[in-house]
Amino acid sequence: MPFLSGIPPFRPERPVFAIVLGNTLLSTVPGISAAGMSPEKTVLTPVLDSELITHGDIRSRKWKPNTPTGCPTPAVITRAMMTLLGMVPLFVNSGLTTQPVIPCLDVYGEPGKDPREGDAVPRAHELYARGEQVGRFLSQSADLLLLGECVPGGTTTALCVLRGLGIPASVSSSFVNNPVALKEAICARVQERIQADEAKGIRAGNTKDPLDIIRIGGDPMLAVAVGIAASFKGETVLAGGTQMLAVAALLRELGKKVPSVVTTVYVRDDPSAGFAATAVMIGARVYYVDPGFASIGHTGLARYCVGEVKEGIGAGGAMFLARIMGKSEEEIREALLTTVSGY
Amino acid sequence: MPFLSGIPPFRPERPVFAIVLGNTLLSTVPGISAAGMSPEKTVLTPVLDSELITHGDIRSRKWKPNTPTGCPTPAVITRAMMTLLGMVPLFVNSGLTTQPVIPCLDVYGEPGKDPREGDAVPRAHELYARGEQVGRFLSQSADLLLLGECVPGGTTTALCVLRGLGIPASVSSSFVNNPVALKEAICARVQERIQADEAKGIRAGNTKDPLDIIRIGGDPMLAVAVGIAASFKGETVLAGGTQMLAVAALLRELGKKVPSVVTTVYVRDDPSAGFAATAVMIGARVYYVDPGFASIGHTGLARYCVGEVKEGIGAGGAMFLARIMGKSEEEIREALLTTVSGY
Repeated sequence: MPFLSGIPPFRPERPVFAIVLGNTLLSTVPGISAAGMSPEKTVLTPVLDSELITHGDIRSRKWKPNTPTGCPTPAVITRAMMTLLGMVPLFVNSGLTTQPVIPCLDVYGEPGKDPREGDAVPRAHELYARGEQVGRFLSQSADLLLLGECVPGGTTTALCVLRGLGIPASVSSSFVNNPVALKEAICARVQERIQADEAKGIRAGNTKDPLDIIRIGGDPMLAVAVGIAASFKGETVLAGGTQMLAVAALLRELGKKVPSVVTTVYVRDDPSAGFAATAVMIGARVYYVDPGFASIGHTGLARYCVGEVKEGIGAGGAMFLARIMGKSEEEIREALLTTVSGY
Repeated sequence: MPFLSGIPPFRPERPVFAIVLGNTLLSTVPGISAAGMSPEKTVLTPVLDSELITHGDIRSRKWKPNTPTGCPTPAVITRAMMTLLGMVPLFVNSGLTTQPVIPCLDVYGEPGKDPREGDAVPRAHELYARGEQVGRFLSQSADLLLLGECVPGGTTTALCVLRGLGIPASVSSSFVNNPVALKEAICARVQERIQADEAKGIRAGNTKDPLDIIRIGGDPMLAVAVGIAASFKGETVLAGGTQMLAVAALLRELGKKVPSVVTTVYVRDDPSAGFAATAVMIGARVYYVDPGFASIGHTGLARYCVGEVKEGIGAGGAMFLARIMGKSEEEIREALLTTVSGY
């Protein structure tokens, strides 16, 4: 199995790695997200991950954003690659419950609400426009935009959005056992809410408009990431799993160019997600990264191979970037092992 | 009088224009700042100015950030130059009383407090470190950093900092008649507070440390701007009047390279400020821009010549950038007139 599933037809000179942080209150629903030691702690993971990537350790809180079983956050992988490349990523705050401890390009959004109760992202159209503004700024100097995300619970909002777009897709999970039934039940409940509102004469908005679909059942990251990608002038590569497929699908529905997507083989190999088939449906070219965690010599990373975590905060994209910027597979694996051992 | 007082020894290919927004509660003291229709309204000027520069008009509030006499905000000049150059500036939120309506690279600071009552910027050291992080991000792609600011009341905090550094300087003002006595009284009061605290055995910190001087009597912009300039790897040009001289002086005290400063001839010609002499003391090379507002055909801009506004939100630097990026004096003046007439 090669490290990269294909060679991209571009070699960037001035790449920018932007990581959109966001929350959805769905991550606090027990059983939805493994991106944190407990459901309540998942909401802090974007802030802790960004601190870890920037400083190499977490000083602001006394716990780590690991899974309940102690599997290390994928931020360790992103940190290792940024150190190897001497790069500083740009964190974008799309809407968080907690103030970050490192600088973020802030669009001044709010955390996504529980879409079963009401609109998840009331300001979706405005956040999209602010994302476009970020894309315009980045277009001035960068020739490649690698766009990642960190939204605990975000595969569930991605599922609601894919369903809203009429795409019969599944999504992946940070759990070994994807809580598919729970996610489906949430999306069905959202659909019922919209239908009940419409029956009562409450207009739900044009539910054919991709941004209205985010408003109803998405999360703030989706609105902002779609806006950034829609206005960035250079090459865009979406770094992530099924959440980034939702971003690609939204861009297609908006009539924009569909970017490539890069993710890990652990997402590809999740039988509950059907990643490759969904990518084909959407028309997104996909690059897969296989860092060979089974033999890397770290039990926490080896658990990625049995389906825990799998991907997150642009980890797959970070390894992809290191490779296309000329780092060898050996350098990449050595950097990963050094960083995860010190974590 | 030439448009530019000198030709810089660099010609950027990928400039970035970063504008640090901040507040000090001193701007609400009557008579301190003309950067708003009334003292209370001055605190909103950074938010309104950034909206105007981004969108060309102000939609979020029903008033304009003009002076009490109706003189147009210098943001009109910055807007005109950004449109002429097809550039998107980066706004940095160092600490504001109100949430911005456009994306900002936010370091998550707080507005500066009244330094007569207590420490103005308790987190000065932390904000400096976050500014350094911003500078590291920008260093990856930009070869020139033009660094502007918007802090109503900021000449008074700049004066307190220059005095704290032992520099016998004066500062400029957005008023025709600089309220020199009021500013001096505030700085003297800050000095008394520190001495009284020390007499009571309350340690004021090492008042020889430039960041402690910001903590005691500065504003959040100063901490963040100094951090950004300290870590930016390419050429840095500070865009502004006496507040940017304070930034240059702080950088010198920290043992960093002293950047050039660019401002308008209206700041240079303010007899109450002694700009040129202070720049010599600090060792900062200065470029002056003379846009010839007396004959431009707009009564509001003509008032800049009699000493109102003079400069602000990087206006002088924006005209400097347009010139060194190859725009002619005629193109610059035409763009200014078009924008200010439509405002």
